Amino acid sequence: MFVTFASDYGHQDEFVGVCHGVLAGLAPAARVIDVTHGIPRHDVRFGAIVLRNALPFMPTGVHLAVVDPEVGGRRRAVALRCGDEMQLLVGPDNGLLRLAAERFGGIVEAVEIGRSRWRLEPVSATFHGRDVFAPVAAALARGEELAGCGEPLAVDELAELALPSARREGDQLIAHALIADRFGNVILDADHGDVTGLGARLGDELEIATDGRVLRARFAGTFADVGPGALLVYEDAQQQLALAINRGSAADDLDIGRDAELRLRRAAR
Amino acid sequence: MFVTFASDYGHQDEFVGVCHGVLAGLAPAARVIDVTHGIPRHDVRFGAIVLRNALPFMPTGVHLAVVDPEVGGRRRAVALRCGDEMQLLVGPDNGLLRLAAERFGGIVEAVEIGRSRWRLEPVSATFHGRDVFAPVAAALARGEELAGCGEPLAVDELAELALPSARREGDQLIAHALIADRFGNVILDADHGDVTGLGARLGDELEIATDGRVLRARFAGTFADVGPGALLVYEDAQQQLALAINRGSAADDLDIGRDAELRLRRAAR
Amino acid sequence: MFVTFASDYGHQDEFVGVCHGVLAGLAPAARVIDVTHGIPRHDVRFGAIVLRNALPFMPTGVHLAVVDPEVGGRRRAVALRCGDEMQLLVGPDNGLLRLAAERFGGIVEAVEIGRSRWRLEPVSATFHGRDVFAPVAAALARGEELAGCGEPLAVDELAELALPSARREGDQLIAHALIADRFGNVILDADHGDVTGLGARLGDELEIATDGRVLRARFAGTFADVGPGALLVYEDAQQQLALAINRGSAADDLDIGRDAELRLRRAAR
Repeated sequence: MFVTFASDYGHQDEFVGVCHGVLAGLAPAARVIDVTHGIPRHDVRFGAIVLRNALPFMPTGVHLAVVDPEVGGRRRAVALRCGDEMQLLVGPDNGLLRLAAERFGGIVEAVEIGRSRWRLEPVSATFHGRDVFAPVAAALARGEELAGCGEPLAVDELAELALPSARREGDQLIAHALIADRFGNVILDADHGDVTGLGARLGDELEIATDGRVLRARFAGTFADVGPGALLVYEDAQQQLALAINRGSAADDLDIGRDAELRLRRAAR
Repeated sequence: MFVTFASDYGHQDEFVGVCHGVLAGLAPAARVIDVTHGIPRHDVRFGAIVLRNALPFMPTGVHLAVVDPEVGGRRRAVALRCGDEMQLLVGPDNGLLRLAAERFGGIVEAVEIGRSRWRLEPVSATFHGRDVFAPVAAALARGEELAGCGEPLAVDELAELALPSARREGDQLIAHALIADRFGNVILDADHGDVTGLGARLGDELEIATDGRVLRARFAGTFADVGPGALLVYEDAQQQLALAINRGSAADDLDIGRDAELRLRRAAR
Repeated sequence: MFVTFASDYGHQDEFVGVCHGVLAGLAPAARVIDVTHGIPRHDVRFGAIVLRNALPFMPTGVHLAVVDPEVGGRRRAVALRCGDEMQLLVGPDNGLLRLAAERFGGIVEAVEIGRSRWRLEPVSATFHGRDVFAPVAAALARGEELAGCGEPLAVDELAELALPSARREGDQLIAHALIADRFGNVILDADHGDVTGLGARLGDELEIATDGRVLRARFAGTFADVGPGALLVYEDAQQQLALAINRGSAADDLDIGRDAELRLRRAAR
């Protein structure tokens, strides 16, 4: 059985290693794959998008994820079973797991694991990765039943992930900035088809109205299709629509913050 | 057999990977778990505390650790067997392994491995992780006898780890700063019981005399129990007593250096 | 079967994890060892030297390496078989794999894998680690034939790695700066024997003419053989000749850039 593991713990401290140790001790036959531990600290939305992008490339199994700004508070800890056979998710109930769960066919069973029989006692106030999440992931990897890992929870009680939603208005696509990646590329809540739906073809100019300005960007296949410093809209390797500046930072140079509204239309040819 | 591996090598270079390669080549059946490679460079005390905190959560096996400012000098390289069955430690003899060894029931057998039959020739002047420590850890993971890994060494010849020691004086606890973690939280050489021993209960105010000042701190369960910028004394997830500023850095903001003496007493209620 | 994996992907993003996921899904029996993912971004020469130094310490198997500044451009993707039995290399055809291949007995068979039957569709423009290189490495680790992984390619069509070349001129060794490591130590295209060939013994002074200056350096065994701030020429743990300043940065303090020429001779005793 595979266990994947993503977090915002970073590599400076021993947090990731300790969780590996707990997994190895409690589920010695499981194989653990680190997705990343470089999610920006406490950034649940960033983590949710990373999981959505990465987990479909992982082997089927138990997917452990910890981005948990409210650890020790009242947020629930949960384990989830998805519609796709044998895809299990374990983590805090703060929206982190929602996008991946959708990719895996939606959530069909949920349990609250904060007081799971499998947790490590004493449970610390701040390190539930070690004391709650990893032990439950290990139990699931050993083949324990989900229902035996905690208290049943109605799927509609689970926390949502607050996300903006792109829409069409006449000849405009009203999109929003979801996150900026490390390179300042701004990931939008839209996809390639939304832009071709405006009648735009690769190579066309787009007008982007945002924050009282109108920007012009190339609808391009990749960075090399535009000159240095030029703005482009493109589909990235995760099939997300993104706004970028070749050799620059769209987020910083254009000051486009999270949830900013961008109104895209095809420029006159 | 499990091998755990901690070091100050970081992830920028190939040092960690090369040690993994050596382990895999010489002990292909062993499973290796990285504890952390983010120990601050050459900080033996920090490494010793990390090992003490992390190794009890690791599977039983061989524990390889390298924080080795005197590599190539006269410090010994050692392999140790602890009182707890089958817990073996491998690393430089500079105190790094002492606290973990105490957690594992103390050292019952020691060998000097600098000229071990298992070392890789030629031994470099600077990379004993690759040439000495990993090969010996691999040999132990294969089931080789500790005695066959080097020359016998009396346990009382091993290097100590110089650490301050908390003590009680009347109604005061005389504690010391051991290290500051990444967040500026100051780990003390005392525990929760030492504070309740002063008659303090969670929620009480403490007076802390240090360096000519008297600070006031809350004896708290977690950060959220005090306001932003407030000082607290709490038990962390590693069951260490620590001094912290909520959303600040106790080490930096209060200029509390390593080995600083802190005299704690319960403030009048 | 072992798969080793080196890249410039870093640990902030999920790129490394996704490649691990692809490998685990397509070659579940393979064991993956990370060499390093801290190669400086797009630095092919640095990556080539890391591979040359690290791969000889890795178990025999498939060696996956990605430093790929021209991804999505016209550079070829390749898989190579070396003279040493069962050493296979997979990566971009930009010189990255050349030095390691030489260590492994030279390249004896090459295939172009950009359109390999094993690649993941759709192939993205920017993430060939996931879509091309890892899937082909997985296929090889499963025991698929190299010839079945792509189109045959003549070995002499493969890209070279442009490197300077040390030479002897009278009583001088004309060497060059290959790269500077993290500590500012300058790796040269020469070895210990080239210096002893000048008649120099450990402890002797060397004169180094470079960029209109003449520097004096100690031919030393290790840093501790010279005082703080002093210049030394030494053989590092990777058996490379290097120029360093004890507790300083030779590259920065002396402004020695890549490919700089250094003319070394033995100073009069």
